[in-house]
Amino acid sequence: MDLDLQLYSVRTDLAVEAKEMAQGPQKMPIPGVNEEVEESDGIKVTRLGVANAAGSQAIGRAIGNYVTLEVPGLRDGDTGLQQRVSDVFAREFEKFMTKIGIGKDSSVLIVGLGNWNVTPDSLGPLVVENSLITRQFYELVPDQVSPGYRNVSAIAPGVLGLTGIESSEVVQGIVDRTKPDVIIAIDALASRSLERINTTIQIADIGIHPGSGIGNKRRGLTQEILGVPCIAIGVPTVCYASTIVNNVLEMMKKHFGGEGAAHTKEIMGLLDEISEQERLALVKEVLEPLGHDLIVTPKEIDEFIEGIANIVASGLNAALHDAVDPGNVGAYTH
Amino acid sequence: MDLDLQLYSVRTDLAVEAKEMAQGPQKMPIPGVNEEVEESDGIKVTRLGVANAAGSQAIGRAIGNYVTLEVPGLRDGDTGLQQRVSDVFAREFEKFMTKIGIGKDSSVLIVGLGNWNVTPDSLGPLVVENSLITRQFYELVPDQVSPGYRNVSAIAPGVLGLTGIESSEVVQGIVDRTKPDVIIAIDALASRSLERINTTIQIADIGIHPGSGIGNKRRGLTQEILGVPCIAIGVPTVCYASTIVNNVLEMMKKHFGGEGAAHTKEIMGLLDEISEQERLALVKEVLEPLGHDLIVTPKEIDEFIEGIANIVASGLNAALHDAVDPGNVGAYTH
Amino acid sequence: MDLDLQLYSVRTDLAVEAKEMAQGPQKMPIPGVNEEVEESDGIKVTRLGVANAAGSQAIGRAIGNYVTLEVPGLRDGDTGLQQRVSDVFAREFEKFMTKIGIGKDSSVLIVGLGNWNVTPDSLGPLVVENSLITRQFYELVPDQVSPGYRNVSAIAPGVLGLTGIESSEVVQGIVDRTKPDVIIAIDALASRSLERINTTIQIADIGIHPGSGIGNKRRGLTQEILGVPCIAIGVPTVCYASTIVNNVLEMMKKHFGGEGAAHTKEIMGLLDEISEQERLALVKEVLEPLGHDLIVTPKEIDEFIEGIANIVASGLNAALHDAVDPGNVGAYTH
Amino acid sequence: MDLDLQLYSVRTDLAVEAKEMAQGPQKMPIPGVNEEVEESDGIKVTRLGVANAAGSQAIGRAIGNYVTLEVPGLRDGDTGLQQRVSDVFAREFEKFMTKIGIGKDSSVLIVGLGNWNVTPDSLGPLVVENSLITRQFYELVPDQVSPGYRNVSAIAPGVLGLTGIESSEVVQGIVDRTKPDVIIAIDALASRSLERINTTIQIADIGIHPGSGIGNKRRGLTQEILGVPCIAIGVPTVCYASTIVNNVLEMMKKHFGGEGAAHTKEIMGLLDEISEQERLALVKEVLEPLGHDLIVTPKEIDEFIEGIANIVASGLNAALHDAVDPGNVGAYTH
Repeated sequence: MDLDLQLYSVRTDLAVEAKEMAQGPQKMPIPGVNEEVEESDGIKVTRLGVANAAGSQAIGRAIGNYVTLEVPGLRDGDTGLQQRVSDVFAREFEKFMTKIGIGKDSSVLIVGLGNWNVTPDSLGPLVVENSLITRQFYELVPDQVSPGYRNVSAIAPGVLGLTGIESSEVVQGIVDRTKPDVIIAIDALASRSLERINTTIQIADIGIHPGSGIGNKRRGLTQEILGVPCIAIGVPTVCYASTIVNNVLEMMKKHFGGEGAAHTKEIMGLLDEISEQERLALVKEVLEPLGHDLIVTPKEIDEFIEGIANIVASGLNAALHDAVDPGNVGAYTH
Repeated sequence: MDLDLQLYSVRTDLAVEAKEMAQGPQKMPIPGVNEEVEESDGIKVTRLGVANAAGSQAIGRAIGNYVTLEVPGLRDGDTGLQQRVSDVFAREFEKFMTKIGIGKDSSVLIVGLGNWNVTPDSLGPLVVENSLITRQFYELVPDQVSPGYRNVSAIAPGVLGLTGIESSEVVQGIVDRTKPDVIIAIDALASRSLERINTTIQIADIGIHPGSGIGNKRRGLTQEILGVPCIAIGVPTVCYASTIVNNVLEMMKKHFGGEGAAHTKEIMGLLDEISEQERLALVKEVLEPLGHDLIVTPKEIDEFIEGIANIVASGLNAALHDAVDPGNVGAYTH
Repeated sequence: MDLDLQLYSVRTDLAVEAKEMAQGPQKMPIPGVNEEVEESDGIKVTRLGVANAAGSQAIGRAIGNYVTLEVPGLRDGDTGLQQRVSDVFAREFEKFMTKIGIGKDSSVLIVGLGNWNVTPDSLGPLVVENSLITRQFYELVPDQVSPGYRNVSAIAPGVLGLTGIESSEVVQGIVDRTKPDVIIAIDALASRSLERINTTIQIADIGIHPGSGIGNKRRGLTQEILGVPCIAIGVPTVCYASTIVNNVLEMMKKHFGGEGAAHTKEIMGLLDEISEQERLALVKEVLEPLGHDLIVTPKEIDEFIEGIANIVASGLNAALHDAVDPGNVGAYTH
Repeated sequence: MDLDLQLYSVRTDLAVEAKEMAQGPQKMPIPGVNEEVEESDGIKVTRLGVANAAGSQAIGRAIGNYVTLEVPGLRDGDTGLQQRVSDVFAREFEKFMTKIGIGKDSSVLIVGLGNWNVTPDSLGPLVVENSLITRQFYELVPDQVSPGYRNVSAIAPGVLGLTGIESSEVVQGIVDRTKPDVIIAIDALASRSLERINTTIQIADIGIHPGSGIGNKRRGLTQEILGVPCIAIGVPTVCYASTIVNNVLEMMKKHFGGEGAAHTKEIMGLLDEISEQERLALVKEVLEPLGHDLIVTPKEIDEFIEGIANIVASGLNAALHDAVDPGNVGAYTH
C-alpha cells in the first residue's frame, strides 16, 4: 500500500516565465500577448494578457489575464517592504477583479490549497486562517451587516493523502451548496528559477489546472468545472534540484562571456551549446535514477511562508472589503 | 460586526448522565431503556439501548444505541492504560458497527468537528490527522489495494467562525460527491460533571443533533439530513463554571450527611433542599449577568487532548481495518 | 518513578487581592501600605507601595512596589483595546523602572518562566519569543548599535519536569556569565478570582519567590539570590475549581441581600456566616479527596494567552528601547 | 541594526566525507586513521578512529572517535526501518560511551542546539523534548529512584538571534551549576552531499567546534571549554545550492564515462578537468554575487525532522537508561 500517488509537473506556472522562454534572449514581442510593466520601489508589476489562441499557443498558457508581482527584496525579511507589497497586491487585486467583471457585491469563496503539515505547501491554509470571513453574518443576521463588507467564506480542503478526497471534489461540494459568485484559490507553486522562490506572486483568472504546478489537484478548479470564475493566486515556494543545476549552468554561461563565446565553450563544453530544454533533460537523466531530483526549499521557509501568507491575506482583506484599509488591516490577521 | 453567534446548550450529551438523572438516587429501572455494564481493569463500559418512545422520553435521548467508556484513571496520563483503553474502544466500536448493521466493506467518512485553534475543541481535527486514510487508493488503483483495508476518507470541516460555512454544509457537500456508506463524526462535548472531563468516551448511532453539546452545529449531522447512518463519538473536554459549582454543592450535601439531614440543612440552608435543576438555575442567575459563567477546561488540556485523540484514532484504525491490530496500530498515528 | 513533584500554592500572587482581603469589606486604609488608583477607558491602574514591615505583615506581601493593570474588557478580544493596554503597560513599566532606579543604559535579561507545552503556562516563553533582543549586537559590533536601543537578552529556561533543572539554576548560570543589570521575569499565575483570569497584569520589584503562585520555582529569582534586581510581571491564567466555587458562593451572598441578611441565611445556611477562609477550606475538604480540585482555565485560553503575550512583549519592547514606539512596535512581534 | 551575524562554514562536518575526500577515488588507506564498516539490512555503520596528528592532518578532523550511520532508505519514511535504525543507534551509542570511558552511573546533560522556529534547524530542541529526563528525581528524592535509570537533564539553549546569548555561554552556565559528568550535544549540520540529507547520523567525541557546520556556535562545546567530555550527535539537514550543483556535475562525469573520457570532456569542457574544490569555487563565484547560494532543504523537511528526532531520542533513551528497551521506548517519546 506504499503507492506514490503524487504526480509532479516540471512546467512552470508563472506566465512571465513562460513568456520569457517563448521570447528567447532577443525579447521579441509575441502576437496575441500584450504586456504592461511597472516598477517602483523594488516592486515590479507585470500585467500580461493572453488575448487569443495564437498567443496562448506561443507561450503555452491559457487565454486570460495574468498579473505578477516580483519583489526580490522579500527574501531579506524587511517588514516595511512586506507592508508595501501587501498594499500593491491589494490595489492590483482590486483592479484585476474589476477588469474581469467581478462586482463589489459578488460573494467570494477563498480556497487555500495545499498541505498544512508541509511548511512549503502550507501557504493556502495559512491565507485562509488569516482571511476576514463574513458569510456567517450574511446567513444569520443579513440586516445587521455593516456596509463596506463583502460576503466571504473560506476553506482549506486538505490534500488527497490526508483526506482521501481530491481538493476539487471538496470544493465542488461546497460550491454546490453555498453558491459563491467567484472562487479565489491560493496555492504554492514549483518554480523554474531559484530566485523566484518566495519573491513572486501571480494572480490569474484561469483557475487551477490539473497537473499544473506541484501536487495533486488533478481535477482542477476552473470555471468549466465549478460554474463560476476562479481566480488563482500562486507563489513559488519550492524548486527541483535539477532546476537549480540548470539555473546555475545558465548563469555560468553568462559569467564566462555568454553563449557561444570561445571561453564559455572551452569551460563548459557541450553544456554551453545545447538548448535549455536539452540541458534540463540531461540533468534529470543524471539525477532521477539516483532518486536525487529532490524538491527543495530554502532553509528559512518557515519565516518566508508566514511573511508571504500575511501579505496575501492582508492584501485580500483590503481588496475584498472596502471597510478594511491599510491602517486597520493588521487587526484581521494573526 | 461584533455579533455573538455562538449558542451554547446546557444539556449534557452523555446518555449515561441523562439516564442517571432520570433514575434519581433510587436507581429505578426505566421502561424502554436497557443497560449492560461491564467493568474491568479501571475501564467501565456501559451499553445503553433506548428501545422506544417511552424510553426516549424518560431520559430525553433519541431512540438508539449508546456505548460509554468511563476511565477515571485517564486523568493520570498512564501510557499503558491509554493503550488498553484504545484496545477496548476498538473492540466496542467494531461490535457497535456490527450491531447497527455496518458491514466490513462499508466505506466510511470520518468527520472531525471542532476548531483546531482552540485546544479543548480540537479533538475532532486531531483524530482526523491520525486516521488511516485509504479512499485515494480505492479511487486510483482499486485493484492494488491489499485485503484487510476499508475505504476510509476524512475531513475536518472547521467551524462557522473560521470558514463562514456550517460544518454540516461542508459535510453534506462532500457526502453528495463521495457517497460514503456511513459517517463517523468526532466531537468535543461540554460535560455536566467535572469528573467526566477527558475521562469518558461515548459512541452513539444517533448522529450529531442541532444545538446539542457546545458550539455551532445547528443543522446537525443525522441520517435524515445526510441520507446515510451517522455514528457520533463524543468526549467531554470542557464544562461551565456553573456546572462546577453545582457539582461541588452536590458533593457537599453528601459530605455533610446527605440530603435532608439536619446537619446538611443547617450548613447549606435551602441549597440542600432545592432540586439540582433549581440549584443550577440559581447559580446561573448569579453568574450570567456578571459574564462569569465561563466555559473552563483543565490546565493540562493540551496533553489530555493529545492522549484522547490518540486513543480514538488508534481505536478507529484498528476497528475499521482488519489489517491493523494493536501490534502495529502505532505506526499509523503520530 | 511516578512522583508528583509539583507543589501548588493556594495563595494569590496579586498584591491588590491580598490588600483587599486584608482591608475587608470596609476598605480600611492599612498603615505602611499606600495606594494610587487611576482609571480611564476601561483600564484600571493601581500603584501599591508596601513601605515597611507593618504593611508587609498586614497584607502578607514583601516590602516593595506593585503596579496592577485591570482590564475586564480584555476577555472580549478587542484588538483596539489590546493596543491601548500595551501602551499603558509600556508607560507604567517605564515609570516603574525609573522609580526603582533602573537607568536607561541598564542591560536587561528577560526570563520567560513556564512550560511552552502547557498553553496556560506558556505566557513567559511566548513573551520571550516576541521580545526585541539586542545583546548579540552589543557583544559583536558594539560600535555599530544605533542609539535608542538597550542591551536586552532573553531566555525561556523551561520547567523542572522538562529539563531536570530548576528554572532558577538555569537563570543563575546565565546571570553569572552574562552579568545583566536587571532581570525581568514573566510568569503565569494562579488567581484567587475567576474574573481576573487573563484580564490582570501585575508588575512588582520583589522577584519571584519560592512556592509563590503555581509551579516549580522553588529557589526563586530574587535580588538576594541573583545579586541583581528582579522585576516580576505576572498574569493570572488559571484558577482552582475550589476558587470558582468560593467566588460563586460569595456572589450568591451579595445576590441574596448580603451577609447576614435573613434571606441569605435562609438560603445559604452556615455558608453565609463562615469566613471566606473557612468556606474555602470547606470546599477543598470536599473536593480534594476526590481528586477534583482541578486547576482550570477558560476554554479560549489559546487566544487569550496569545493576546496577553503580545501586550506584554510589545509593551516591554517600547519601554526598554526608546527607538521603539507605538507606531512601529508591531514590527518586532509576531 | 540589520546585521548579518551568521557565519556559515562550507566544510563538511561528517568525518566519513572528509576521509573519502582525502582518500580520493583510489580509496587509499590513510595512516593514523582506522576504519571499521558494517552493513546490514540497509543500515551502514562506519566506525572511524583518528588516532594521531598525522591522521588528523590527513583528513582535517580532530583526533577522536567517529561513528556514522548511513541509511538511504530513511528518505522513504518507512516506520519499520526507523525503529531498526533507532535500535542500531542505541546499540552503537552504548558501545561508543563504553569505548570512551563513560560509565553507567555518569550523569548526562543533553544539549539540543539549534533554532526551534526554523524547521531544518530544530533537530536538537526536538530531541530534548523527547528525552527521558530524571535529574529532578535524583535531586529531590534520590532514595526513591528505581534502578535502571541514569541522572539525565536537558536544555535547548536557543540561538544567538533569539536569546542574545551564545549557546555555549548558556551551556557553560548550566554546567557550572549542575556539574554533569558528560555532555551530549545534538545539532543539525550542513551536508556536502545532497544524498546524505536526513539519511546520516554521526556520533563523535570531539564536541562542537567553533564555526563547524552551519550557524552560530562560535565558542564551541568542547572538553577544554566545559571541563567534561562532550559527545556530538549530528545529522545533515540542509545543503548549499552550490553543493547541489557540484554534486550533479560530479554525477554527470560518472554518467558520461568518468573523468578524462573523451566523451565527458566533449560534453563538460573544463568542468570535467578541474578538481572538485576548484569547481565548487567556480560555482560559488557564479552564485554568491547574485545572493543565490541559498541554503536549501528538502520540501518534506517537517516529516524528516520529526522522524530523525524520534530515532535519536528513542535511541538515546534506550542507551542511557537500562530500564528502557525497544519494547517500551515508545512510551517516552511523543
